Amino acid sequence: MIIVVRDEATNEQVNQVVARIEELGYTTHPSRGAKKMIIGIIGDLNREELIESLGAYPGIDKLVPILEPYKLAGRSFKEGQSVIKLGDNVSIGDKKILVMAGPCAVESEEQVMSTALSIKASGASVLRGGAFKPRTSPYSFQGLEEEGLKILRRAANETGLLVITEVVDPRDVELVGNYTDIFQIGARNMQNFFLLKEVGKTDKPVLLKRGLSATYNEFLMAAEYIMSEGNYNVILCERGIRTFEDYTRNTLDLISIPVLKKLSHLPVVIDPSHGTGHWDLVGPASKGAVAMGADGLIIEVHPEPTKAMSDGQQSLKLDKFDILMKELKNIALVVDREI
Amino acid sequence: MIIVVRDEATNEQVNQVVARIEELGYTTHPSRGAKKMIIGIIGDLNREELIESLGAYPGIDKLVPILEPYKLAGRSFKEGQSVIKLGDNVSIGDKKILVMAGPCAVESEEQVMSTALSIKASGASVLRGGAFKPRTSPYSFQGLEEEGLKILRRAANETGLLVITEVVDPRDVELVGNYTDIFQIGARNMQNFFLLKEVGKTDKPVLLKRGLSATYNEFLMAAEYIMSEGNYNVILCERGIRTFEDYTRNTLDLISIPVLKKLSHLPVVIDPSHGTGHWDLVGPASKGAVAMGADGLIIEVHPEPTKAMSDGQQSLKLDKFDILMKELKNIALVVDREI
Amino acid sequence: MIIVVRDEATNEQVNQVVARIEELGYTTHPSRGAKKMIIGIIGDLNREELIESLGAYPGIDKLVPILEPYKLAGRSFKEGQSVIKLGDNVSIGDKKILVMAGPCAVESEEQVMSTALSIKASGASVLRGGAFKPRTSPYSFQGLEEEGLKILRRAANETGLLVITEVVDPRDVELVGNYTDIFQIGARNMQNFFLLKEVGKTDKPVLLKRGLSATYNEFLMAAEYIMSEGNYNVILCERGIRTFEDYTRNTLDLISIPVLKKLSHLPVVIDPSHGTGHWDLVGPASKGAVAMGADGLIIEVHPEPTKAMSDGQQSLKLDKFDILMKELKNIALVVDREI
Amino acid sequence: MIIVVRDEATNEQVNQVVARIEELGYTTHPSRGAKKMIIGIIGDLNREELIESLGAYPGIDKLVPILEPYKLAGRSFKEGQSVIKLGDNVSIGDKKILVMAGPCAVESEEQVMSTALSIKASGASVLRGGAFKPRTSPYSFQGLEEEGLKILRRAANETGLLVITEVVDPRDVELVGNYTDIFQIGARNMQNFFLLKEVGKTDKPVLLKRGLSATYNEFLMAAEYIMSEGNYNVILCERGIRTFEDYTRNTLDLISIPVLKKLSHLPVVIDPSHGTGHWDLVGPASKGAVAMGADGLIIEVHPEPTKAMSDGQQSLKLDKFDILMKELKNIALVVDREI
Repeated sequence: MIIVVRDEATNEQVNQVVARIEELGYTTHPSRGAKKMIIGIIGDLNREELIESLGAYPGIDKLVPILEPYKLAGRSFKEGQSVIKLGDNVSIGDKKILVMAGPCAVESEEQVMSTALSIKASGASVLRGGAFKPRTSPYSFQGLEEEGLKILRRAANETGLLVITEVVDPRDVELVGNYTDIFQIGARNMQNFFLLKEVGKTDKPVLLKRGLSATYNEFLMAAEYIMSEGNYNVILCERGIRTFEDYTRNTLDLISIPVLKKLSHLPVVIDPSHGTGHWDLVGPASKGAVAMGADGLIIEVHPEPTKAMSDGQQSLKLDKFDILMKELKNIALVVDREI
Repeated sequence: MIIVVRDEATNEQVNQVVARIEELGYTTHPSRGAKKMIIGIIGDLNREELIESLGAYPGIDKLVPILEPYKLAGRSFKEGQSVIKLGDNVSIGDKKILVMAGPCAVESEEQVMSTALSIKASGASVLRGGAFKPRTSPYSFQGLEEEGLKILRRAANETGLLVITEVVDPRDVELVGNYTDIFQIGARNMQNFFLLKEVGKTDKPVLLKRGLSATYNEFLMAAEYIMSEGNYNVILCERGIRTFEDYTRNTLDLISIPVLKKLSHLPVVIDPSHGTGHWDLVGPASKGAVAMGADGLIIEVHPEPTKAMSDGQQSLKLDKFDILMKELKNIALVVDREI
Repeated sequence: MIIVVRDEATNEQVNQVVARIEELGYTTHPSRGAKKMIIGIIGDLNREELIESLGAYPGIDKLVPILEPYKLAGRSFKEGQSVIKLGDNVSIGDKKILVMAGPCAVESEEQVMSTALSIKASGASVLRGGAFKPRTSPYSFQGLEEEGLKILRRAANETGLLVITEVVDPRDVELVGNYTDIFQIGARNMQNFFLLKEVGKTDKPVLLKRGLSATYNEFLMAAEYIMSEGNYNVILCERGIRTFEDYTRNTLDLISIPVLKKLSHLPVVIDPSHGTGHWDLVGPASKGAVAMGADGLIIEVHPEPTKAMSDGQQSLKLDKFDILMKELKNIALVVDREI
Repeated sequence: MIIVVRDEATNEQVNQVVARIEELGYTTHPSRGAKKMIIGIIGDLNREELIESLGAYPGIDKLVPILEPYKLAGRSFKEGQSVIKLGDNVSIGDKKILVMAGPCAVESEEQVMSTALSIKASGASVLRGGAFKPRTSPYSFQGLEEEGLKILRRAANETGLLVITEVVDPRDVELVGNYTDIFQIGARNMQNFFLLKEVGKTDKPVLLKRGLSATYNEFLMAAEYIMSEGNYNVILCERGIRTFEDYTRNTLDLISIPVLKKLSHLPVVIDPSHGTGHWDLVGPASKGAVAMGADGLIIEVHPEPTKAMSDGQQSLKLDKFDILMKELKNIALVVDREI
């Protein structure tokens, strides 16, 4: 960390800061220039409390962190790419790009089964679907809960797909874990630290969605919460950030793919459905994601989007998904990947 | 709701939409102009699923909601101002502006007791302090937990203050409720719907902090979640939103005070400490809040900010808080309030 | 436009609004539901003054515009794709993706000539370079001005490239037009309406960069300013928007490609250099742009980025640009384009 | 400036960077810790080119600027508060808070004269009004131009007010200067550097509005552009920034008042009309601004807002303005100011 001293700080004020840092067990590297004085503290400083308490000294102008605050999620922990095994013959982070698809909400056995058969034929490996739905309005459809989980599991078993579904309450982790292959943590829960810790205590893979206004740093710190409990099987998922633009539901931050891969060894997945909010933007967004190195896609599809109980306007019809998969295969090939 | 039809929509496409709306039990008001056709649906349309499923029709350009999606939190439920009783002789929403103060984190009996005595003398009514700390890093100080709750309760009892403290896990609502007078829901948990429902089942007042990138609509919908469970004692708290500006920790949205009071009958509190992140901005922000009609303030203070275990740089010293209280009293008087 | 009436509006207030609209020459379509009244005004309402003046009526809750305010730039003006001729055998908007490359700033004859030769060999068609540099600081290098324009022209003539360069002052349009083939309007000047009108009076193609916080609507309205003067040769360029994320210089909004192509017939170009601010993100961003349907790319390259007078950290070396061009050709092929 | 070296940088790479810095005439302060190496460069480093070119070195992780890039606008240039003389007996920056008021656009002699008489009686000192209107749409009313300037001048002369009006084109600075007492630079032109330089060559006071997404740093750099030409009479004006919230036209950043006063000696003015976009929020915003230390207010008023040619919905009626002025006087008194 670098401490920038105020122009008008007295020697006594500087000495107090230095004394405090040394009291905390660190050594200091002050350097004084013509116009500014800075104090470097080099070492393992991942302690927010230190940073925050120093900011209260009157002689301090600002504090500039240098080290990334995440350890297990970061490049200093692992240089290569993490490959996460999801099931027999299915993994993420290797050459094959993982495609997950399914409806926003589980509505009925028929809806899920017809979807599962269709996406399997198109080449998807994982069936997505919400059984517990965190909705902005308490008066909206909140999901079929355990009945929905059972429907997903049966459809997956019959078609040879894996299941990914969202868990929203730390008390439900065991229940959801009985049915799913992959936990999904939604964007609204990216900093629900008790939920993160709870899935961190399991050994099932966790797809962690980036919060609507989370920085890369905070996103990786949320992954760190899961990993710090011992579960290293974390998949990062970008699903759009909130900006001033309101034509799209969110602004899909595709450049997060190469950035997160530079900062972390964890696989990166794109959600083009929530990321754009329009079914006719899902195709272009998916193509961009594959060309830019995404390890996976999670796409909302529905047999009848006009009757969907949620997110109909961003759901692809099954035949359109099938066409998209063919187009994506071709792009994957030229960037040395497979779908 | 208003449905805007695409320029190139066929009559058949329009008829499909109209049929679907009527199938859902609503009546339509189409009007066709020289350049655009719109279809009005007037009635109680607070069903996200309807809105979303209509968006999937090929003839639809966009959907424009007209009614606010919140009921209990909104002006149509109550015209006047809600006054919430917090304890004997302490309430919020009436002429007297409520001041809550205390350290970010409960660190020790001495720290809390000296703070409580001092803020009581300065005129505060509620003691704040975190016992469960949701921290961005899993390696940061996470709070004293139940021991911290006990310290807060004892200090409040001895000084005649009320307690406000954060609850972060739905499983802890009962435990925290045993010690606190007011539940605090943090910004990161504004859309942790299961936590909202859990405090909604109690009858204790809840101070709900606005999420970092939550719109006014989403903020009021989160209040609605609590209220829809039967607990109408909700206090709205603005604590800064995330923008491109990074000099301040957040951008404190003071205009939210008159806006929220226009849209809702619930009391509005400002948190100038998290809202700015700098102790020397807390004074100006508090003065602005009082002049603009805030019903309360929640301010971080610390006997020794330079040794605080969290948020030292935004904590006021106790003597500075005392001076500020005097200044605020004068501003309150000229806007026909009291502190 | 839709006018939403306040719940508490009196009949008299509603009648005043209706009278005012009819006074302005429009007809109204009121519809009254159980909870809300709305008044539709369908027709050519592209007059901000009307919208704004109605908002001042006490009975009005809000105004919802329905028609896009742009005409010439929009889909209602032209259904297909505009192809803009830039020079002999060079155009944008057709199958071939246009690549523009060059240094941020023109520094010397040698720098520009070596760059021009190299990018020509790699397959670029247009040489970019700044002669007038709008810099955040008045103390930064402001460009070689006319001398820079001459260097660009000579290098382009000798290598068979076209020139694109920025014009920043309405008084310089004629001067810059004497040397360049394409005018560039920078992001900071997207709403410098007098500059837009000035280039609108010429018949040279104009590459218009999106402002840092401009919505799609405002971006297209800026294009409309140029087109309303008679110059229809406008190229839209996305170069990153400002968000809370500060790891990257800006957040490159790649989904703008399909959105702008849906809303407008004008060609869309991506600037991956300013859009990311890091040379090692330029490759992934360019690949995504091509896969998503961009009509062109404008890329900063420099023979010696470590000695560049501006933007060195986002400039590609010439050999890296050459490799990237080969990769882009392959992606272009699978999306049925050429480079 | 601090240079953070990549973990994997070789000694040779570090030596290259050090050599380059010394070649540019600076001395380096490297310090090497257990995990990271940093290189401090302390001195006058306000040269963007240096910063940017170093970023291109392969061994560099990131560059952290330490010194503020502005000189004349900053605290290191002047410790106290700048007081700017605007006319006989009228200045800004001293105890008296300056109030500017008037219509968004000059529409007619009667409109301006009745407004001028009324605001003068209410206690305003400066008459505002737009003669050249930069509008988002080329089809909107663009202002009365020179005829508007004449109307403003006459109304000011007859009532003893000063005039402030916007200049939008560098070619109009002389013309506008013939009529106005204070130049206004609009938010869209905050980085129209040639316009800034042009008003910088005059000696008339300049009210500079903050751009919609400008950081404090960029705002002060824009002031620096004007001051670097010799005109030190710059007034900073906050008028709302762009965020995700769309209920208000912009998010009025009131905390900018104490921040800008900490960073700069220039007077700070608030525009509550554009900052909120709703006439009923202008009062609360103005009260907050005065309580927080603003040196001035610029408020849109109109004798008949429902017939205004622009911005009617955010304009106060003249009688409401009069009441507000009385309320503001009381708040000013308790913060030791006057209106």
